[in-house]
This record gives sequence, structure tokens and C-alpha cells, in this order.
Amino acid sequence: MAEFKAPLRDMRFVLTELFDFNDINQLPGCEDFTPDVVDAVLEEAAKVCEEVLQPLNRSGDEEGCTWNDGVVTTPKGFKEAYKTFAEGGWTGIACDPVYGGQGAPKTLNALVEEMTCSTNLSFGMYPGLSFGAYAALHSHASDALKDKYLPKMVAGTWSGTMCLTEPHCGTDLGIIRSKAEPRDDGSYAITGTKIFISAGEHDLTENIIHLVLAKLPDAPKGTKGISLFVVPKFMVHDDGSLGDRNSVKCGSIEHKMGIKASSTCVMNFDGATGWLVGEPHQGMPAMFTMMNQERLSVGIQGLGLGEAAYQGAAAYARDRLQGRALTGPKSPNKEADSLLVHPDVRRMLLTQRAYNEGSRAMGIWVARALDTMKYHENAQTREEADEFVQLMTPIVKALFTDWGFETTNIGMQVFGGHGYIREWGMEQYVRDARIAQIYEGTNGIQALDLVGRKMGAKAGRYLRRFFHPVQDYIETHVNDDGLGDFVQPLAKAFMRLQQATAEIAQRGMKNPDEAGAAATEYLRLFGLVAVGFMWARMAEIALKKQDDDDDGFYKAKLITAQFYMERILPQSGALFSAIMAGSKTMMAMDEDAF
Amino acid sequence: MAEFKAPLRDMRFVLTELFDFNDINQLPGCEDFTPDVVDAVLEEAAKVCEEVLQPLNRSGDEEGCTWNDGVVTTPKGFKEAYKTFAEGGWTGIACDPVYGGQGAPKTLNALVEEMTCSTNLSFGMYPGLSFGAYAALHSHASDALKDKYLPKMVAGTWSGTMCLTEPHCGTDLGIIRSKAEPRDDGSYAITGTKIFISAGEHDLTENIIHLVLAKLPDAPKGTKGISLFVVPKFMVHDDGSLGDRNSVKCGSIEHKMGIKASSTCVMNFDGATGWLVGEPHQGMPAMFTMMNQERLSVGIQGLGLGEAAYQGAAAYARDRLQGRALTGPKSPNKEADSLLVHPDVRRMLLTQRAYNEGSRAMGIWVARALDTMKYHENAQTREEADEFVQLMTPIVKALFTDWGFETTNIGMQVFGGHGYIREWGMEQYVRDARIAQIYEGTNGIQALDLVGRKMGAKAGRYLRRFFHPVQDYIETHVNDDGLGDFVQPLAKAFMRLQQATAEIAQRGMKNPDEAGAAATEYLRLFGLVAVGFMWARMAEIALKKQDDDDDGFYKAKLITAQFYMERILPQSGALFSAIMAGSKTMMAMDEDAF
Repeated sequence: MAEFKAPLRDMRFVLTELFDFNDINQLPGCEDFTPDVVDAVLEEAAKVCEEVLQPLNRSGDEEGCTWNDGVVTTPKGFKEAYKTFAEGGWTGIACDPVYGGQGAPKTLNALVEEMTCSTNLSFGMYPGLSFGAYAALHSHASDALKDKYLPKMVAGTWSGTMCLTEPHCGTDLGIIRSKAEPRDDGSYAITGTKIFISAGEHDLTENIIHLVLAKLPDAPKGTKGISLFVVPKFMVHDDGSLGDRNSVKCGSIEHKMGIKASSTCVMNFDGATGWLVGEPHQGMPAMFTMMNQERLSVGIQGLGLGEAAYQGAAAYARDRLQGRALTGPKSPNKEADSLLVHPDVRRMLLTQRAYNEGSRAMGIWVARALDTMKYHENAQTREEADEFVQLMTPIVKALFTDWGFETTNIGMQVFGGHGYIREWGMEQYVRDARIAQIYEGTNGIQALDLVGRKMGAKAGRYLRRFFHPVQDYIETHVNDDGLGDFVQPLAKAFMRLQQATAEIAQRGMKNPDEAGAAATEYLRLFGLVAVGFMWARMAEIALKKQDDDDDGFYKAKLITAQFYMERILPQSGALFSAIMAGSKTMMAMDEDAF
Repeated sequence: MAEFKAPLRDMRFVLTELFDFNDINQLPGCEDFTPDVVDAVLEEAAKVCEEVLQPLNRSGDEEGCTWNDGVVTTPKGFKEAYKTFAEGGWTGIACDPVYGGQGAPKTLNALVEEMTCSTNLSFGMYPGLSFGAYAALHSHASDALKDKYLPKMVAGTWSGTMCLTEPHCGTDLGIIRSKAEPRDDGSYAITGTKIFISAGEHDLTENIIHLVLAKLPDAPKGTKGISLFVVPKFMVHDDGSLGDRNSVKCGSIEHKMGIKASSTCVMNFDGATGWLVGEPHQGMPAMFTMMNQERLSVGIQGLGLGEAAYQGAAAYARDRLQGRALTGPKSPNKEADSLLVHPDVRRMLLTQRAYNEGSRAMGIWVARALDTMKYHENAQTREEADEFVQLMTPIVKALFTDWGFETTNIGMQVFGGHGYIREWGMEQYVRDARIAQIYEGTNGIQALDLVGRKMGAKAGRYLRRFFHPVQDYIETHVNDDGLGDFVQPLAKAFMRLQQATAEIAQRGMKNPDEAGAAATEYLRLFGLVAVGFMWARMAEIALKKQDDDDDGFYKAKLITAQFYMERILPQSGALFSAIMAGSKTMMAMDEDAF
């Protein structure tokens, strides 16, 4: 199958043409990331992804991880690839320089993550989870704990996990049963079973640092009684050397639909020694502070796989000769025309592009806000960015992963029967993409987060962080020559979003089920408008540059923007109707009738 | 996971309440299939599917088929199950009694097929493909060939295959390279490589009868030069005993995303002995006569898997306690409420039901027409039924399999993380369902068939077989008390379908790419309206019977009908917009830009 090539041209377009990367470069702490450095990082990341990670993607899927008496072995080549990856500094790219990291802004790191996911999602899970554990420790642990654990996690010598889910609960962490008993020396004895722990056990690093949610003996009920603990696989001496094995063991690994080279572990904690991270009973807020970054990253998994699937499908469509154009043969000297002559094949490929390029732009829009809220000098600016991020996070996570699954499926469909055969690699993208709609909060939970927590937050102030700039843009450009054709469909969809928002807010106050019933469709409507805004802005730039378009980049942008407005954005109407239907019908069904 | 139970109550509703099964029972040749017999057949089919096929579904997926030097071994238990299945007469249920079959009408057999697909799609492929080969021989072979091959194929002692696809062509059979050289004894030497041959080699039967498309030396170019041959794995003596091995061998089997217990073979014909079926160069028409039955059957695969996924998801949602209702705890004495309290979970389950029950009704509508065109005494009635079947076949195939994939994915989503784990079986439904969108003509090809061949056929007469009854129904009932609420949304969507039809017909005449660009969305719009018509008619019956509704069956029907009208049918608006967008944008993209 076709070799994946990182879409650097489009990435640069988003970074520096659609947005102004100087804004980020000028933030305190980001000064080193000049345009030249950013370019070099992207080139290097592309190289390691294309040359080191990509070749292991299929073989990793075929071989999978194996478990033997608590020991987990990753597929052939993963250990060496991980070594290369860590030595290249990629495990610490977004980490604090104080602990040895590179301190790259999310705006840059999001693009690196995209390439990792395009070439080997299973591999990317190991450093990805590690970064999550790093971030939780970095934000909430004492300096002593940070000094002990972070440098080696940043260097990739050790990895990390997030141990949340238990057999009886995933979404509803308030009912976890894992316990933490205080010991006299200030440590805790952690006991319980955690499931679905990505990278819980493996052979890539010398130690594994588990972050574990558990309940103290005096814990209040529910989510307000959850504390966060750090539990190393091997005890760590004060000099940093490794001591005894802790009482935590991998009981088994799951056999999954996809991401087979990523170990998904049952972890048994049997009086394992751990230390409290942050304050007692404050485990959930600690989780939430890192969740925005994580959920953007999971969204990007959908995008990364979608990009890989597009590239595979486009190459196949070009090479495969099959049938004739409806308007008469295009390659009369050949046995058949290429698949690219068929409108329906173009429809599929352009749908993929509209999703991928639109998601990439929107992802960077949110990543920029993450950097602004982290680094900006002005508190007011930071707060505004934070509000925007809070609002957009569930949308990015759910929309990108739904589209990622759809896009990988389109890629497979373009291949016809060959798409269903493992050898071609297209069906792996589908299987790998499927998990992203589920983990890190199912997409249904994202939708509830949007309507339940984010919509009404601060009397609608979160919403205004999105609505105001979009409204301004529409008012300014709706009658522009040329650009108006792109802005008018956006305006129509935006009006539906505003109406739906008002309606849900009003109905939801009387009956929360009304908000719940509308949640999924509302999130999608919101996402369509947000990406529509990105496409209008991309069209604006492409219109301006179309006279200086040697490689046809801007022409393709304009066509794809138009395609989005004509073929995808009109879904807003159907979503609006579904939202308006309310909760009455679905709640009328007797439980026994299901 | 939950045990699958055949949805006999709903099947009977469709057979005898929504439609009148007496119409079928009265057809010449169908007299034996009285309501009592039909009931008994359904009960028996449910039993064999639930008790014999279902237990092998997961293990068959895990083990898969194995290939060793041309010999293919099916998973453990398949041989015994096949024996039970064949001895029960299920391989011949829809076959001609002259050759030992039961002669069941498609109206009944479609429901049996649904149960087979719900419980073990991979298993169902073996008798399914065999039936396809049987049907081709039955319609086109000489009596001598029929007498030689059909009795044992009907009995299941032998099986059959359809050998069409070659490495360089699937959709475009006009460019096949397999050759047939005439021999002096009236046989032909068949040479070529066929791929993706389901059940091409296996260990379930004593002989395998291949139907092979190949070109005679004097063949015209393209699809008009394709002939059909019968090529047995073992030569058959005149007394029916088996002779030497023929020169056809399985070169390898494919490793696939799903249907792993179904062998998908590369078949090498190396001067294999075959006999012409029907006239020279008439292979394609011979294929097409059986394709309507086959495509309905593939559509039913989507429905069968969708039903299984619904049942699994509903059971899980009932049992899994997680979180609290948005309106306050519903089971305050338990740790959490069941998933059924959440509107978004109900949205998912009702979507599945609306698709499944709607597809079941529409499938039987088409199956009845298949029986009518086959058995009815009146030539005019047969022709009308044939026109209706021609029109609806691509819609049924593409819509049911798209929905089947969506429904199995919803089922998986209801399970959250557990859905992604193989042990629970939900992800297998997804993987198995995916192929049905591709084989037997990809869903994009179905859409082209609809707009290219069916829409304009006989000056629109095919279309009128659908449009007239729907129009009449709407006019009669649109203002009915109660029922009007269901008919009005249907009327709106129907109007869009009529407009879209006129527009595509007009534009397509000037530029065929216009029809191609609209095809997929037009097929979906058509399907939404057709199933909407079914739901309106089901609501009509349920409204009448709601006072006599001990088990809540009719109440659930009404709620699901309402859900379809409110939440699903409005998609017609977005589809209409996409259709109106035309082909200009997608065709404007330079080939190099993809």
C-alpha cells in the first residue's frame, strides 16, 4: 500500500497562514519556537514517524502484545523503535524544561501527535499515556514527588499510566471500590482492581509509574471522595535507583478489536505502596485539569487515522483502473479508466479531505487557546482562552473521532473488496479508529458535558467565546465578493445553532432529559458550524492567494471548502429537526419494552 | 453476553399483520406454506440458529479458517453444525421440490436468512453461496447439468460457489482474463485466477461446484463476451459418484477484518474441465437474473447483524448500573441507575430498532414481490412485481447494509469500553457487518445502478411502482386523526424525493456525471422514504390495535414509528441539499490534487 507522507504543506498552512504562529512564538516560555525551529521539528517528526513508526504498524497489529504470568511483551521492533523515539527527545517534547523536556507548545505538539497517530496509533499510546501521567504529577504532586519521578518520565526511561476504570464502573467513577489505607510512614496501601489500563504493563521502559484513583477510609461518597495516588511498579530509592517490585501486577491483557500493539491491562493492586498526589479527596479535579489536553489528543487520533486513510484511498483511486467514466472513456488506450473519473469516488475522497483539513484547522485553533491559557501574561486573556477550551474540548473529542471513524471507513470503501483484506492495511485504520469514540469519555458523555456543564457555564460566557467571533466574522464577510458564497451557508447553519442553543437552554431548565435527548445532535451541529467557520476562513485566504498558486494548493482548498459548504454543512438542518423533537418520544418507551 | 432470541413476534407482525400472508400462500407452488407451516418453520429455524449456529459464532471468529497446501479447514464444530443444518433441510429450504427442495417462498426464507445472519454470518455464507450457484444453474443450465448437480447441492452434500472477481477487476467484469477453450468432447478447458471466492474451498461437503465466468476464444470485448461455466472440484460420473480431482485448486485464503470462519479463496483454474451453462457470451445476463435475490439476501445480512447488536445492547443497557438519571435517581437503593434512564442511550437503542424493524418490513415487502414475480399466474402482475423488485433491489442492498454497519456500531457504543473487547462479541458484529457494504456490488455501485439503470427504465415505469402506492397512501391518510402525525413527515420527505428524482433525471440527461454525483445521497433519500412508508403503515396498524395490547408490542411500535419520523426521516432535507449541489465542485478538482 501507499507510503504515508506527513501532510507538512497543509500543517504549515494552518500554522502560519490560517493563524499567525508569531502569537504563540511570542508567549513567555515559547520564545525558542521560532518558525525555523518549528519547521525543523515538523520535518524531524515526519521522518521518525514515516521511517521508524510506520513500518511497525501492520506487523504490530498482526503480532499484538502477549501476556505471560504478569509479563507483557510488545511486538517485535517496538522496543528498538521506542528507544529511538525517546532518544530523539519525543517523549518529552511537550514537557517542562525544568525536568528535561523541550517545552514545545501544544500548537506544535498537536501536529506531531497527528503524525504519530497516522503512522502507528498503538505505539503512540505508550508515550501518550505517559504524558498524561506526567501532566497530572506536574500539576498536582509535591516537588519531592516531581523531582523523583518526572525527569525519567520525561526522558522516556520510565513510562506512566492512568488507572481509573474498574470492572463495575467507567463513566461513573463515583462508585470506584479501590481503597487507600494510610500507613505510618506517610505512604498508603492501595488495594483494588483496575481494568482497561493502557500501557499498564509492557517491556519498553525500566519502570512504570501508575497514577491511581482510590478512596481513603474517611472518603465522602461519590466523586467527592476520590483521591489520586502515585504507585510505581518498582520502588524508587532516594538516589533514583530502582528497588523492590511493588505489589502491583498485571493480571491479564484484553484482546481487542484494534490497537492490538498497545497493551490494555487488568492491574491488580494488592496493598501496593503509593503516595498521595495533591490533597485528599481531590482526585477528580486533578484528573479534570489534564483532561482538556488529553481529549484534544484523542480527537487528533481520529484526524491522524483519517489522514492516513485518505492518503491510502487517494493513491489507490489513482492507480486502480476499473470501469469507464460516465461521460465516456478518459484513458481510451488503457483497459479502463482510473477510479478518479467517478463522481462517487470523488465524493468519498473530498469528504475525507473536508473532514481532515477542517479538523486540522479546528484542532490548531483549540491548541492555540491551550497555549494561551497556559503561557499568556495577561490573566484576563488566559481566562478567556480557558473558557474557549472548556467549551470546545468535548466537541473536538467527539467530532474528530466520529469523523475519524467515518473517514477510515470511507478509505476502506474506496478499496472495495481489497479494503476488507488485512494485507492492505485499510481495515486496521478502521479498527484502530473505533476506540477513540469510546475512551477518554464516550462521545455520548462528551455531548452531555457540552450541554450539561459547558453550555450554561458562567451564564453562557463559555458559549460567547465561540459565538462572538463567528458572529463578527459572518457580519463582516457575508456580502463579500466571492467569499460571501462560503459565508452564507455558514450563516444559515450558525443561525440554527443559535436557535438550538436557546431552545435547549430553555427546555433543559424545566426538564434535564430535554438537554440529554438533544446532546449528541447538538454537539454535532456545533462541530459542523465550528469547522464551517474554519473552512470559510481557509477559503478567504485561498481566494486571496489563488493567483500565486504554482502547486494548485489554494485551488484544492477552495474546491474542498465549497464541497464542505454544499455537501456537509447542510446536515445542520436535519440535526436541528432532531434536536427540536425533544425527549418525549424516547422517554415514553417502557424499560421492559427494550 | 446476552443470548440472541429470534424476533419471532415482530416477524409474525410483518408477515401477517402488516402484510397479508394469504396472498403468498395462495400463489401456485406456495400452497403448502399455510400459516401453521410458516409458524413451524420459523420456530424450527429459530431453534437451529439459536442452539446450533450461535454457539459457534465467537469461536469461529477466533479460530478462523486455515489453509494448508490447498486444503481449507473450517473452525471446530462447523462440520457437525453443517451436517445438522443440511439434514434439517435448511440448505434446500428455498429450492425447487423437483430437485428435493422445500420450495419455500422468499417471503419466508428471508426471515430464516435473517436469523442465520444474526447468529452466525460466516456459517451462513456456505449455504448462502451454494444457493446462489444453485439458482444460476436452475435458471440457465441444461436439464442434463441440472439433474447431475442440483439434487446434491439442494441436499447440502455438495456446495457451490460463484467465481467472478479477478485480481485486476471486481466491479468491471468486462475486463476479466479467464479463458475457456472448447474441447472435442463438448467440455471446456478453463484457465485463470479468481479471487475473493467465498466457500471456494472448505471441508464441509463432499464436492464443490464452481460457477465460473470466463471468455471463449471468439468472445466479443467487454461484458458481452463473458460466458458462464460449471466446474466441479471432483469430476462427477454419470451415476453421480465422484471421480478424479479437477484441475482447480485453492491457492490461498484471505485474512480479513471479519467473517473469519468463512473461507475467502484464491482459486486457480489450470485447464480445469467445465461445461457451458446457457448460451455462449450470455454469462452476465445469467448472473443478473439471480442478483436480485442475492442482493436482498446481502441486505438481510445487515439487518440480521443489526438485530443481534440491538439485543446485546438492550440487555447490557438494562443490566449495567452506571450514573444517575438526569432527573434524579431512579433506583435510589442501588449504587447507580441502569443505562436505560439516559436519553442518549435510549436514542441509540431506538435508532437501532427503527432501522431493524423498518428494514424487516421493507425486506418482506420486496420479498413478497420476488415471490409474486416468480409464482403469480397473471403475466401483468408478474411484470409489475418484477419492475418493483428491479427498482428496490439496489436500495435494499445498500441501505440495509449501511444501517447494519451503523447499528452494530451503535451496539458496540452502548457497551462502552467493553464493546471494544472481543470477549463480549459486539465488535465482531461490526467487523462482520462491514463486508456487506462492499461485496455483491459496493454500495456506491448500487447507487449508480439505481440512478443509471433503474430510474429511467421504461420511461420511469419502475419508479411508478413505488411512487404510486406511496402517493395514494399519503393522499388517503394525511389528514387522518392520529395517523396523520405519521403521514405528514412522510409526505414532506416524499416530496423531496419526487423533486430530487425530477432534477436528477433532467440534469443527468445533459451530463451523466450529475447523476453519478447525486447517486449515493439519492439512494439514501429513497430508502428513507421507503422505510418511512413502512413505518407509517406499521403505525396505522398499531394505532388500531392499541386497546388490545397486553404485552405492549403496539405501544412500542408507535413510539418507534414516531422516533423514526422525528429523528431519522428529517435527514431527507440534508440529502436533498447535497443532491442539488450537483457535480461541478467535485469534478473541478484536478486529478493530481488528490
